[in-house]
Amino acid sequence: MSATTAPQADAAPPLDPALLAAVESALTAFLNAQTLPENLRAACLHAVLAGGKRLRPMLVLESAMAAGGRVEDAMPAAVAIEFVHAFSLVHDDLPALDNDSMRRGKPTCHVAFGEAMAILAGDCLLSLAPLSAARCPFNGSAIGHELMDATTRMIAGQVYDTLQGFPEGLSEQAKLELVHHNKTGALLECSCRMGALAAGADAETLARLTSFGRAIGLMFQVVDDLIDATQTAEHAGKATGKDAEAGKLTYPVVHGIEGSRREVERLRLQAVDALAPLGSRGERLTKLVEFLARRTK
Amino acid sequence: MSATTAPQADAAPPLDPALLAAVESALTAFLNAQTLPENLRAACLHAVLAGGKRLRPMLVLESAMAAGGRVEDAMPAAVAIEFVHAFSLVHDDLPALDNDSMRRGKPTCHVAFGEAMAILAGDCLLSLAPLSAARCPFNGSAIGHELMDATTRMIAGQVYDTLQGFPEGLSEQAKLELVHHNKTGALLECSCRMGALAAGADAETLARLTSFGRAIGLMFQVVDDLIDATQTAEHAGKATGKDAEAGKLTYPVVHGIEGSRREVERLRLQAVDALAPLGSRGERLTKLVEFLARRTK
Repeated sequence: MSATTAPQADAAPPLDPALLAAVESALTAFLNAQTLPENLRAACLHAVLAGGKRLRPMLVLESAMAAGGRVEDAMPAAVAIEFVHAFSLVHDDLPALDNDSMRRGKPTCHVAFGEAMAILAGDCLLSLAPLSAARCPFNGSAIGHELMDATTRMIAGQVYDTLQGFPEGLSEQAKLELVHHNKTGALLECSCRMGALAAGADAETLARLTSFGRAIGLMFQVVDDLIDATQTAEHAGKATGKDAEAGKLTYPVVHGIEGSRREVERLRLQAVDALAPLGSRGERLTKLVEFLARRTK
Repeated sequence: MSATTAPQADAAPPLDPALLAAVESALTAFLNAQTLPENLRAACLHAVLAGGKRLRPMLVLESAMAAGGRVEDAMPAAVAIEFVHAFSLVHDDLPALDNDSMRRGKPTCHVAFGEAMAILAGDCLLSLAPLSAARCPFNGSAIGHELMDATTRMIAGQVYDTLQGFPEGLSEQAKLELVHHNKTGALLECSCRMGALAAGADAETLARLTSFGRAIGLMFQVVDDLIDATQTAEHAGKATGKDAEAGKLTYPVVHGIEGSRREVERLRLQAVDALAPLGSRGERLTKLVEFLARRTK
């Protein structure tokens, strides 16, 4: 099964273009409906509409559908999680953190709007996120609560990754899992849980989608580490080898390239297995996880 | 009634020391109970425990009691609003915003922990706030929702104050009210509403405490403007005259010193009137508003 993790020709992710367009519209509509200073609104729109795969909101919507729910009932949760993701990118890009001036070919928020506005726009997106989540007709307050809990974990993961603060006596392996499960995994797992909750899923379906989300959350980051370690910058579409230069704890550093590929395969199977009992309703998420396991940028 | 707004000998605010101690304990206990990197926890504790009047959490608890509720039912809301207040101070102090290196005689968060950690600690406090609010046994999710709504308004107010973004065609007076009602007023009004909600107050009592909160929210900022415009730095305990130097829109600039004092008096009476129907249950809040109207630092 080595073909499953070997680099493949790039393909577009199997994401429904109509759903993607609906997410973009909902993001814009929510921000335009708020009473905000116009410059703050513009900075928030810049942060949210700067492109990207929309993986998290799509996971929310696909998970809701896999749980038998309706897209419109989950859309406020999809908007909410993308706001949190956008906030985290805006703050991570700041000079005091990653100091990135470009993201997806556009100037980052602080480059376009100044550092003060970027800090405040990130804050604003974070405070708006639970307000959007609360609009879900089923489990709105539980969804907002899960989102803020995952956000706290994501921030903790960012601290572990860049500023340490680990509990004493942890192995490198344990540190690595702590970073990955929190920094990237928390929001991806949360996306799937939010979708299930927004669909009013039963406990069994919620547990299935939670296992699925947890597996792909970690898998996503291991694949990212592999891309950083093995691809050329031109192919990956971003600077690569940065992790090694920065002395960061990554899967390839701790487990080697082959060990990391085996881990991707293990997590891919775990995610697919979690969906199996959902039958045909799980098909779209299964295609998505197959794509994510093979992605090369 | 000129004595009501003239500078008086300083006195301690009429805040119950046992309640204050309970707030400090609850703030610490909540942060210590979270799973966080130790350096992030330390930065959050530094931000939250750096002193201060605890006006917002005390307003939550006093409003809950004025509405006939219990302190313990409102404490999670008190913790939540102080987290939001602390987050806003940490981010406002950053070099890209106010660039303050000391607050209440202690180094600000970014001076003590570095700028990256200060950004992330502020984010963390903001994401934790609704998680604390949700623990209120009555109206937990409504309380969290009101808090995030007020937080968005506070951020909008900070943008208006420092980066403009006003709707076109506003008078100076209208701009001033937009800044003050949002930047300071939103959280103070929210404190009183959260207390009432946490007490399970009826609609009439909630409306009373909302009017009270709205009046003192604006009054607090007008008094602040007066202190900046009229007191020496030594007396006020902080740099004064900064607003005028910065060309900021303030009540004394738009209405003059005497006009601003009349506005304080008008708002003081409005606040006291709002409490009148609560009878003896409103006494402690009445004493607090009398103190806040006369404070000189």
